[in-house]
Amino acid sequence: MNGAQALIRTLVGAGVDVCFANPGTSEMHFVAALDDVPEMRGVLTLFEGVATGAADGYARIAGRPAATLLHLGPGLGNGLANLHNARRGGAPLVNVVGDHARSHKRLDAPLESDVDAIAGSVSGWVRRSLSPADVAADAVDAVAAAARGQVATLLLPADVSWSEGAEPAAPPAARYAPVPTGYRLTQVAAVLRSGAPVVLFVGGDVVASEAGLRAAGQVAAGTGARLMSETFPARTVRGAGLPDLPRLPYPPEMAMASLAGTVHLVVAGALPPVHFFGYPDTPGTPVPVDCTVHVLSEPGEDGVAALRELADLVAREVQPELLEASRPELPSGPLTPRSMAAVVGALLPERAIVVDEALTSGVGLAELTSGAPRHDWLSLTGGAIGDGLPLAVGAAVAAPDRPVLVIQADGSAMYTISALWTMAREQLDVTVVVCDNGSYAILQGELGRVGASGGGERAGRLLDLGGPGLDFVALAGGMGVPATRAATAEELADQLRAALAAPGPHLIDAVLR
Amino acid sequence: MNGAQALIRTLVGAGVDVCFANPGTSEMHFVAALDDVPEMRGVLTLFEGVATGAADGYARIAGRPAATLLHLGPGLGNGLANLHNARRGGAPLVNVVGDHARSHKRLDAPLESDVDAIAGSVSGWVRRSLSPADVAADAVDAVAAAARGQVATLLLPADVSWSEGAEPAAPPAARYAPVPTGYRLTQVAAVLRSGAPVVLFVGGDVVASEAGLRAAGQVAAGTGARLMSETFPARTVRGAGLPDLPRLPYPPEMAMASLAGTVHLVVAGALPPVHFFGYPDTPGTPVPVDCTVHVLSEPGEDGVAALRELADLVAREVQPELLEASRPELPSGPLTPRSMAAVVGALLPERAIVVDEALTSGVGLAELTSGAPRHDWLSLTGGAIGDGLPLAVGAAVAAPDRPVLVIQADGSAMYTISALWTMAREQLDVTVVVCDNGSYAILQGELGRVGASGGGERAGRLLDLGGPGLDFVALAGGMGVPATRAATAEELADQLRAALAAPGPHLIDAVLR
Repeated sequence: MNGAQALIRTLVGAGVDVCFANPGTSEMHFVAALDDVPEMRGVLTLFEGVATGAADGYARIAGRPAATLLHLGPGLGNGLANLHNARRGGAPLVNVVGDHARSHKRLDAPLESDVDAIAGSVSGWVRRSLSPADVAADAVDAVAAAARGQVATLLLPADVSWSEGAEPAAPPAARYAPVPTGYRLTQVAAVLRSGAPVVLFVGGDVVASEAGLRAAGQVAAGTGARLMSETFPARTVRGAGLPDLPRLPYPPEMAMASLAGTVHLVVAGALPPVHFFGYPDTPGTPVPVDCTVHVLSEPGEDGVAALRELADLVAREVQPELLEASRPELPSGPLTPRSMAAVVGALLPERAIVVDEALTSGVGLAELTSGAPRHDWLSLTGGAIGDGLPLAVGAAVAAPDRPVLVIQADGSAMYTISALWTMAREQLDVTVVVCDNGSYAILQGELGRVGASGGGERAGRLLDLGGPGLDFVALAGGMGVPATRAATAEELADQLRAALAAPGPHLIDAVLR
Repeated sequence: MNGAQALIRTLVGAGVDVCFANPGTSEMHFVAALDDVPEMRGVLTLFEGVATGAADGYARIAGRPAATLLHLGPGLGNGLANLHNARRGGAPLVNVVGDHARSHKRLDAPLESDVDAIAGSVSGWVRRSLSPADVAADAVDAVAAAARGQVATLLLPADVSWSEGAEPAAPPAARYAPVPTGYRLTQVAAVLRSGAPVVLFVGGDVVASEAGLRAAGQVAAGTGARLMSETFPARTVRGAGLPDLPRLPYPPEMAMASLAGTVHLVVAGALPPVHFFGYPDTPGTPVPVDCTVHVLSEPGEDGVAALRELADLVAREVQPELLEASRPELPSGPLTPRSMAAVVGALLPERAIVVDEALTSGVGLAELTSGAPRHDWLSLTGGAIGDGLPLAVGAAVAAPDRPVLVIQADGSAMYTISALWTMAREQLDVTVVVCDNGSYAILQGELGRVGASGGGERAGRLLDLGGPGLDFVALAGGMGVPATRAATAEELADQLRAALAAPGPHLIDAVLR
């Protein structure tokens, strides 16, 4: 068999059986081989950033990597922003990037570029497969590297794809994340017993599972430590019957206020927090200068096991405080970020996957959904906007039996708007609520926060999405997604109820005041 | 003044007075400073690939760089594909990429990435501005570097923008491209007099000016050399009264046939040709193995001056053969790539700028427009699809008094579709004809060309844009661009005539059989 066939068979054998693809000429043998290995599902996207964001969303829900299929350096470049988000969230992901045939590489053909440098900027693992005899083993190593929670990029020369002499390889060895034990646990237990104000700062694997969240809640209940989550976890399990999990706020002044007085910060599954950006006359991190940071578990370690051991040490047989089931009343009147959030909280279905790229329009969303039925919440991990719609594509492919709800800022939606087409093509059960405020509202806030004089008309035009306004109903319709517009809370409730009840994708343009 | 103000004043003083922007938080002081320096025109794009492609299009028409304003590594990544095209076309371009404040850089904040590596992959010049006192001088160096026909990337820490103590700097020294003289001219003249079959292979600056094209035509007429252009020149002057300029065909078999028997290949303004991709059992270049390549001028040198000197040596007082004015008849009946091309040839207005990203639908387009009134033709230089609409944005900003006509493949259009919104926002005089064949037709051809078995249903689904079809009329309307649909040659003619006659942007969805 040829290299492409062996590669795909090997990926499928290693559990990678979905490929989000935007191929070009150098990937044609990979594409042709999809007919030889029907176990691999190819999902076409119209832009590489949709493919990479979808692979991220898939990984967050499925807990294992999808593949992407991208076209040389420029195709990888188009996928880079959402690979950045995947890297920041620790998503396992296997990029297959077609490259020129080995003999063609030195000719500096028009599509030649430093694809190695581009790949290196975002990948934990990069390799160019140099012969058909090696490509299957390279694929195994890529999957193993991805399983450590990173982006693995396999550069695949076209002639390695098309040449015969390849054979599939066995899947990688099973892998278990390292479990923090002994000294770290003892130290953290001592801190928790010290009586000083402690914040237990969790993220990553800890908040992605009920077991991790309950163990964290148990430690908090047994020691008086305050439980807090990183600002943008890749995946959080949430809802009634689970511990409440306040998130560190995004604005620096609010983040600093929420950690003021903390003497010990114990981190598990997360990195110690820093502000997204530097600001004039503001420290770079919300951690007080006299606060000591203790690392219970780092990303890539088994934070859930660590927290369960810790709970046994400091809070044996303590029950965590759990949220009661509660939903907000269905609101009426004008549609605002808060009434939008109340509608979502009132109607969120059980087992929903919420993709949150609401940005400034997300005020109240976490609060008003915290007592809703059990659900998962996916956040923008790396700050590279435009991952909401692609994440939803991947999540829906990973969990076809679960409803996916995207709360999507309008400006951010435009970076990867063609994800709507893939939702329609694959008939994914996704409901998109566009937070239509007609502006880059987050930047209008940031303009003030950085102390820029702002307010000028010419600056304002670069932060405004009007003149002309974007008609998301028309855009969705143009890509085969049925869409409606809601201008009041009642209309949003009616349309959201209908969209959630019907199969396939829907978009609601929520016009916010 | 602060760093941002000094930077913008310096750019304007150096002739860079348009900035295609997609800013984020780290760029807020740059945005605010636009109100202090009204000579700089800020043009908002909704995606970075639109900004970089527009800067490329602007440079091709204005002959000088525009700036872009991009947001850290992910923003640069989103702009990378069209920067690749700009690099391949030798466009002068100044990227301003906002970066974290110097004190924040080491904190590995969520948006931190190896922006230096990403910038290096596509730029001829990269520098991080390290202090407000240096930023103006850095900007001068960036403009000087761009003027050598390359992408210059200035990484701008947020606090260098916001800190006081900066002053504008004087523009860079005037620069003149080196003129090939002496030995090279003598050698090439001897080749042209040898009587052996010679192809004069031109591109770059040579085909971008009437003087260059006429000098090349004069050499051809005086020596019997065959004149041929690189396949995808950045800009070609064309039309009645100019020499005919056949282009080297894209398909390898056709390219090889067109150069068969050539004993000497003289290149001016272009690189010696190589195929876009390697294919099984096909050489990497169409140049016959026993053909000698002679470099008269390389990209970056003054090929026009070299060809004029050469014409004086080998073809003094010879008149080049010039194309007569001619237009195809307006066709009728079904819309095919060829009848679409005939409509364009029949109606192309004088001084039009044609942006050609028609790909497979462009068959006949060059032939049927060659005798049209004088116009400029912009091609996809680097093979990274999705530059047609952005190029048109930049060309229209550079030449507001000229009509811009984009012949745009449907699949490629979707990479940067939000360029339509910028056309509407700026009320650019652009007419977009979408070649709507509902597929990645070029890949269907390539699937066969690489010898992939293909034909399978699963492979076919990755090359098909149907299920659902894309409704470009709805998409354009959703972004404020009036749009119509043409299913016959007569409808296309009527709609094209109307669109060209009316100011502002228009889109015609040309449904091809």
